[in-house]
Amino acid sequence: VSELGERALLARIRSRLGRAGGPSAGLVVGIGDDAAVVAPTRNAFQVLTTDALVEGVHFDRRWAAPADIGFRALAVNLSDLAAMGAVPRWALVSFLLRDQVSLEDVEGMADGLSELAIRHRVHVIGGNLARTSGPMVIDVTAVGEARPRHVLSRSGGRAGDALFVSGTIGSAAAGLEMLAAEARDGDAGRARDETCATRFLRPEPRVRLGHAIANAGAATAAIDLSDGLGAAVAELASASGCGVEIDAEALPIDPAARAWWEHAGADAVSTAMRSDDYELLFAAGKKQGGPLRHARSRVSQPPVTRIGVLTKDRRSFVLLRDGRREELPAGFEQWGK
Amino acid sequence: VSELGERALLARIRSRLGRAGGPSAGLVVGIGDDAAVVAPTRNAFQVLTTDALVEGVHFDRRWAAPADIGFRALAVNLSDLAAMGAVPRWALVSFLLRDQVSLEDVEGMADGLSELAIRHRVHVIGGNLARTSGPMVIDVTAVGEARPRHVLSRSGGRAGDALFVSGTIGSAAAGLEMLAAEARDGDAGRARDETCATRFLRPEPRVRLGHAIANAGAATAAIDLSDGLGAAVAELASASGCGVEIDAEALPIDPAARAWWEHAGADAVSTAMRSDDYELLFAAGKKQGGPLRHARSRVSQPPVTRIGVLTKDRRSFVLLRDGRREELPAGFEQWGK
Repeated sequence: VSELGERALLARIRSRLGRAGGPSAGLVVGIGDDAAVVAPTRNAFQVLTTDALVEGVHFDRRWAAPADIGFRALAVNLSDLAAMGAVPRWALVSFLLRDQVSLEDVEGMADGLSELAIRHRVHVIGGNLARTSGPMVIDVTAVGEARPRHVLSRSGGRAGDALFVSGTIGSAAAGLEMLAAEARDGDAGRARDETCATRFLRPEPRVRLGHAIANAGAATAAIDLSDGLGAAVAELASASGCGVEIDAEALPIDPAARAWWEHAGADAVSTAMRSDDYELLFAAGKKQGGPLRHARSRVSQPPVTRIGVLTKDRRSFVLLRDGRREELPAGFEQWGK
Repeated sequence: VSELGERALLARIRSRLGRAGGPSAGLVVGIGDDAAVVAPTRNAFQVLTTDALVEGVHFDRRWAAPADIGFRALAVNLSDLAAMGAVPRWALVSFLLRDQVSLEDVEGMADGLSELAIRHRVHVIGGNLARTSGPMVIDVTAVGEARPRHVLSRSGGRAGDALFVSGTIGSAAAGLEMLAAEARDGDAGRARDETCATRFLRPEPRVRLGHAIANAGAATAAIDLSDGLGAAVAELASASGCGVEIDAEALPIDPAARAWWEHAGADAVSTAMRSDDYELLFAAGKKQGGPLRHARSRVSQPPVTRIGVLTKDRRSFVLLRDGRREELPAGFEQWGK
């Protein structure tokens, strides 16, 4: 794209991202000035997060199409907003591109990002293009809104609160393994499960669920599974000053992922707990029972599963399995991913 | 830093960035949760911008110390907010780091960024750390606030409006040339001018001036000089549907930069117009005369110089020089920088 120049490339990207967001409620000045200007909702809190995808670290061009990469770059940010109970509204997108990247690839990334933005009515209000000699990067900042006293943090959990996780776990990690195996072995490899592959390539941020839980007051604390369930459990419990007991039998492990790992002789439970599924983990006490039923009646998908409980001893992170008390398998750190 | 792990590295960075911002007005949830939460000022617009610095493209470790890089990463974003007349409030900082980078360098970048953040009472409310195999990157998103009807855009200029630029131009480009020459030639090179070098390494965003102009209603349009004065003039005039005439004699070219270029036989005027000085360019008509004097009485530094006028013919971008009408030298595109 080096021959195009920044201005022409920006125009191309803008024409694709400009479609996102529908009616421009709140947008005062969009892409194209020194900065974007928005009119926040009166009395709302603003919720802000940023997360980058780096080629070779967070995605691999051998199995991720440009549109998948763009989709995922926004998804991981919307997942953070979902974990706070916020409604996503705006995004800024920063691309670092090599001179050799094709216009088709750049447009593909913009299209994938735009697809998810449209689904959640997120306006792409600004961004930046820069050259790099290294791996391609998409860095997104997402901004959402939440009502005061309806923000979910990691730190509000109390001993005795039950822990719930949305959807299934393990799908993303198994999906990545399947895609990598296919790229390595071709047809000779085991058939991949399309659901697992899609869960990895295009994680579905649980925006509606997070918002419903926050608005109903149905949780004392929440976090997303960006670093896996094990890490999320440890983070939420630590931030809340609690210990935790997780019941291995209760974990909603994706059956296709479980079959994949058991075939390979791997431990499905601990592997699934390191999978970056972008589901939500939340804590709820007795008081939250009614509100939680109310939230579930409004947003019934994905299902929500009770997997354990917060405990008093803040140094005790336990996985109950086959009648034994094991140490909870930690998740991974994104840094070391 | 690879042996440290993300969590430990984050804690180190946070302890340095946490000092910025003074009393935490508006901060509800800071660094450490899934996302940050802030309470915006009632009835204010939010102004958002993002800009990345890439090693080898926007900075060179041979002459930029880590603290300079961190300082500049925030400065270029605050300059965008200044050009909109916004007061900067919050920032999110994304670092892409190689495993080999030293902890000292990372802390240095955080310190430099923090120094400017403290000066402008900007809170670093979130961010992200990720590994890269390529050049180091700091990507900053800055968020400011502005009163409705007091936002400066690029597009409000009208034919007949005078054009003003703050401070001096050329300093940054000459400073970069001086630093590069020193790195190449060592003591054998020409002595560098410290002011020029500092103007390049640590650009001073014109936050107070931009805010004073916007609040007084002293400009019809504004833009910063991130791509040089030539590009800024062309952008502001185009966005306003005007042409432009710039008076070469009036340009406030830094005397040290002029001497540097004239010694090298280069054209100081056209070179200075490509210099990324992060000053402000703004347009003001007769109605803005009183408000502009008012704004200048409140913020008298840096000086402001009248350099030309917006004209009716939107295809005419003219530089008046030695009685001749030349075509305006365009700035450069950051992409191609």
